Amino acid sequence: MNVAVVRENFPGELRVALVPASVPALVKAGATVLVEKGAGTSAGFLDQQYVDKGAQLIENRAEAFDQGDVVFQVRTYGENPDAGQADLDLIKPGQIVIGMSDPLGNLPAIQELANKQAKLFALELIPRITRAQSMDVLSSQATIAGYRSVLLAAIHLPKMYPMLMTAAGTLSPAKVFVIGAGVAGLQAIATAKRLGAVVTAYDVRPDAKEQIESLGAKSVQLDLQSEGSQDKGGYAKDLGDEFYKKQQEFMGEICSANDVVITTAAIPGRKSPLLITTEGIKRMAPGSVAIDLAAQRGGNIEASEPDQTIHLEGITILGPTNLASEIPNHASQMFSHNITKFLLNMVKENALNLNLSDEIVAGTLATSDGEVVHPRLREMLDLP
Amino acid sequence: MNVAVVRENFPGELRVALVPASVPALVKAGATVLVEKGAGTSAGFLDQQYVDKGAQLIENRAEAFDQGDVVFQVRTYGENPDAGQADLDLIKPGQIVIGMSDPLGNLPAIQELANKQAKLFALELIPRITRAQSMDVLSSQATIAGYRSVLLAAIHLPKMYPMLMTAAGTLSPAKVFVIGAGVAGLQAIATAKRLGAVVTAYDVRPDAKEQIESLGAKSVQLDLQSEGSQDKGGYAKDLGDEFYKKQQEFMGEICSANDVVITTAAIPGRKSPLLITTEGIKRMAPGSVAIDLAAQRGGNIEASEPDQTIHLEGITILGPTNLASEIPNHASQMFSHNITKFLLNMVKENALNLNLSDEIVAGTLATSDGEVVHPRLREMLDLP
Repeated sequence: MNVAVVRENFPGELRVALVPASVPALVKAGATVLVEKGAGTSAGFLDQQYVDKGAQLIENRAEAFDQGDVVFQVRTYGENPDAGQADLDLIKPGQIVIGMSDPLGNLPAIQELANKQAKLFALELIPRITRAQSMDVLSSQATIAGYRSVLLAAIHLPKMYPMLMTAAGTLSPAKVFVIGAGVAGLQAIATAKRLGAVVTAYDVRPDAKEQIESLGAKSVQLDLQSEGSQDKGGYAKDLGDEFYKKQQEFMGEICSANDVVITTAAIPGRKSPLLITTEGIKRMAPGSVAIDLAAQRGGNIEASEPDQTIHLEGITILGPTNLASEIPNHASQMFSHNITKFLLNMVKENALNLNLSDEIVAGTLATSDGEVVHPRLREMLDLP
Repeated sequence: MNVAVVRENFPGELRVALVPASVPALVKAGATVLVEKGAGTSAGFLDQQYVDKGAQLIENRAEAFDQGDVVFQVRTYGENPDAGQADLDLIKPGQIVIGMSDPLGNLPAIQELANKQAKLFALELIPRITRAQSMDVLSSQATIAGYRSVLLAAIHLPKMYPMLMTAAGTLSPAKVFVIGAGVAGLQAIATAKRLGAVVTAYDVRPDAKEQIESLGAKSVQLDLQSEGSQDKGGYAKDLGDEFYKKQQEFMGEICSANDVVITTAAIPGRKSPLLITTEGIKRMAPGSVAIDLAAQRGGNIEASEPDQTIHLEGITILGPTNLASEIPNHASQMFSHNITKFLLNMVKENALNLNLSDEIVAGTLATSDGEVVHPRLREMLDLP
């Protein structure tokens, strides 16, 4: 079983799907690990470190697809639509490709991978069950993004986060408002608290209150019915228009009292809910900073644009779409841990064993034998 | 007594010498406060806020120097040698100018201000006595710089600071080494600790050990005689060549075990000691970050350049020279507190009263009646 790791070629992507520390576990499971030269360099992992851990180096991407029974990518074609298109000509029928694939957002790419007879495992589809936690790339990368978002806000903010009582007077702490208490939001809350900010947080799911408060932040709640706001996978789900309108008014009100707002409310595969209108964001004081972690899919903040810095009446609005990649060393370590656990779950007696009665395997397999096979994706494609 | 506040015109300077909150204290002491339009905008203080606190707006810089008995500047000509030169034509004989002036580093500018008959109070010369702590701009601005340096390192580091134990494995905390435990260094230590880093610190003054450890950092000491390493003002003073050589070897050794190094060892008016040679910095792992807060005067890190980002074998080396200005709101609040206390110390019964038997007044007055009057500066100029 050859496991090949390619160098990521999405613009600005610094992560690598496998780090040297994960190589021994794969070797022990019977794999030969092939790493494209330079694959880990941008994340701080040198070729020699892979070799020292038992991997072999290969020259280029073509060789990786040629020799790999399994190909590891941070971003497969679906999450890398321009540069990744060339991979279609390299994929061999029956080849297992594992990585983030934007299955719910980029169905045409999934269909193309199916046409090439790839066996694509889309890691975004990992079920939110206990046994799969160690494989959950959305969670691990969101951890990084949540931390990073707070630093980014701190760098743009004309104030310090902590309260300081000095001989030169007392500086009041920065006020940070976090919307969405998923993994990214909770990490943002924790990081802002660490730095000494006064943190307020909101989540549409009433369950989130306890988690928010356990981190020392204040939980604010909108006094509207929000039952059934959580789907069975534990994600926030879509609600009605009337609700969102009231929510926007409420958000604007809270924004006006904060120096920083960080929004993390994304709904898998759908347009992100608009939480803060341009009118709402303008209620912040000049110098305030707003970070929209959902900017890639429409954004929680009306005025945000993906990967742009917007200045609006003295307010800085950022819409970073690949924050995890900005801390590539730790992000890659976590991703590598996830993908390695994922693969090992499909290895039995030193050989691949795709057991479709395992809900992790079945839940992530997007394409096989020339077809899109995942039930949810088939439904979206109007396939029987 | 007219106190005029000008808009700073040093490139990239975002601070303002006086913030609206300080206006009432000056008005109460009999001052008329005149603020150049837009002076506070870049720090987040609007013209109307000054007016609301009792200040009057004036049109431009010329008017400030024309009407001000006292002129407040963050950077007077000495600290603003290019754009500030034009101030020489605006200054009136006998006019009091207060601000940072680089008196020990830019003596020619001090002499020119003397020639123009300015009464220059150079705030860097404030004696380190208890009564003057509330006026100490070096301390207040160093607080900001120390905090900012840690954020800057965090933004450049490919790792997160805190240790995280997650389903995707355990991430070890970043290791941060701070050199110099003055105000900036102590704030850097405190901020890095807040963010969850493992912090080691070094200071040539044996007294610093306790302060370092009180912040939860590990103090490392060089086993060499370093008696008399502190001058009577409480600053680190210059030591011999042999000592510095041994120190460099020691520093390189510690750098090799850390992800981040922040150096803050500046000696007022002198070239900063070279603490980390290029050989030493290269002992850090690729991806490491080095920040030299002494880059303006030669630097503690051989490879640093003022305000440049250097990439050396995967190590990022920054030499920021105006970090306080990057957090202009809080930095200006502190500066304003300092300069206001300083002026009020020279006001008696609603009038200026320059009492030269007050060591704060005498200790900061650089020029008067056409001459450089400060004893230390006269000595440096070989004046009797």
